[in-house]
Amino acid sequence: MTPHPFDQAVALVAAGEHEWTGQTSASYANFIGPYGGITAAQLMAAVMAHPQRIGDPVALTINFAAAVADGEFTVRARPARTNRSTQHWIVEMLQEGQAVTTATVMTAVRRETWSAQEARMPTVSAPLDVERETPFRHVAWLSRYDRRFIRGNIPREWNGQGGEDSITQLWMRDEPTRPLDFLSLTAMSDVFFPRIWLRRATLVPLGTVTMTVYYHCDAAQLAATGTDHVLGQVQGSGFRNGYLDHAGHLWNARGELLVSTHQLMYYKE
Amino acid sequence: MTPHPFDQAVALVAAGEHEWTGQTSASYANFIGPYGGITAAQLMAAVMAHPQRIGDPVALTINFAAAVADGEFTVRARPARTNRSTQHWIVEMLQEGQAVTTATVMTAVRRETWSAQEARMPTVSAPLDVERETPFRHVAWLSRYDRRFIRGNIPREWNGQGGEDSITQLWMRDEPTRPLDFLSLTAMSDVFFPRIWLRRATLVPLGTVTMTVYYHCDAAQLAATGTDHVLGQVQGSGFRNGYLDHAGHLWNARGELLVSTHQLMYYKE
Repeated sequence: MTPHPFDQAVALVAAGEHEWTGQTSASYANFIGPYGGITAAQLMAAVMAHPQRIGDPVALTINFAAAVADGEFTVRARPARTNRSTQHWIVEMLQEGQAVTTATVMTAVRRETWSAQEARMPTVSAPLDVERETPFRHVAWLSRYDRRFIRGNIPREWNGQGGEDSITQLWMRDEPTRPLDFLSLTAMSDVFFPRIWLRRATLVPLGTVTMTVYYHCDAAQLAATGTDHVLGQVQGSGFRNGYLDHAGHLWNARGELLVSTHQLMYYKE
Repeated sequence: MTPHPFDQAVALVAAGEHEWTGQTSASYANFIGPYGGITAAQLMAAVMAHPQRIGDPVALTINFAAAVADGEFTVRARPARTNRSTQHWIVEMLQEGQAVTTATVMTAVRRETWSAQEARMPTVSAPLDVERETPFRHVAWLSRYDRRFIRGNIPREWNGQGGEDSITQLWMRDEPTRPLDFLSLTAMSDVFFPRIWLRRATLVPLGTVTMTVYYHCDAAQLAATGTDHVLGQVQGSGFRNGYLDHAGHLWNARGELLVSTHQLMYYKE
């Protein structure tokens, strides 16, 4: 049986105490270079594979310092500080000996406490009642997600007639389906197209420079979510002199908050 | 003339190519150890002082890996990747040779582009029309800010009767006044007390584990803001099994978005 393209993409080979090698994946290619979400998942895969790891991911920040070239890469993941139930990681992806991405990850053993969810999932149509997006064939990674937009789809015409806000809501899952885990959830956190495209309906050149993911969920919730669709909602807050941010949330269909995620993008004009 | 306590707190002494030493500041002490915002400002101070720096801060993520002890510390700040107009930094604070905080910083030369602000400042009373908070004398850093709460002040009674949401709005500025710059703005981004206290009205033990700041402003806007109050608004989104997040914004009184900021806190029960 052929492995799922996602599992192929995040497969790493141990190359030293804190070092792994991997390959970019044609299945998750973007316009140029790989989809940022798959790069984030590859960095997290090294942490998940590390024999000294304690607990599950609670936070990730990844910085896209330079373009990732198609081909081989090295991931270095080392625990910078290990406490009793928490661990702080410094992670780098290298190509030709140069850091192309840097990241910090925090993992922790969680235990049951008082809990509350303030970011409620918006009331939207069920995933199978929403039309599935036709992937754009020039961008491979879009075919790796079943995406169903409720609101704020990518502009159909690049006519400069943008919208008043940059809110997007969509259902998404892996294509072909694959049970959700921390790695695929990490990748999905980057699924939102650039907010400035909604505001301007202009194909501005841009790229993510840093992304943060806070994980509110545990492995049991992810297992229970399985291959169901996940709802994403995102909105930009500031667009100024070359940089814009957005803040998003992902929920499973039961309305449980899986992650909150933020990113800063560079844009050219 | 005695320097402002903030300038004393962020004063570093060069100790090597990428290394500085500093001292924790009694003026910015928290219950235990230093206020996290001042630690963030001290890390950023090393980047700002670095002779190889290009541009101004656009993003910071700081991870509080272990308690910072009162006394001397070392900051290591090195450019991990330098591009034409952007730079990615890896920064660590060390005590006794161990990393107590890790951080990544991005700096960039910004140029004028299409801009828009989607996170509008809420309509609130002018700062001088709002009552000034009396600092809590057991926590030194609170006396270093003039804080005026519009909404969501810290509970007056720890009676377990928390609120329905965790929204706080407050005006703030340095006390004594000091013209705003990237360092003081970094420190102010951590000014919000823990959201779980609002929700539970219970003094749960906790601490910030990671904080991210996206800088939407430039030095000219900060200079124009000067010693005016800055409005902060913040809300939590998920509180689950030991970790909670919040998302906040800071605006100057003219309504210009200065930063968006997020953090994840650990809580004990």
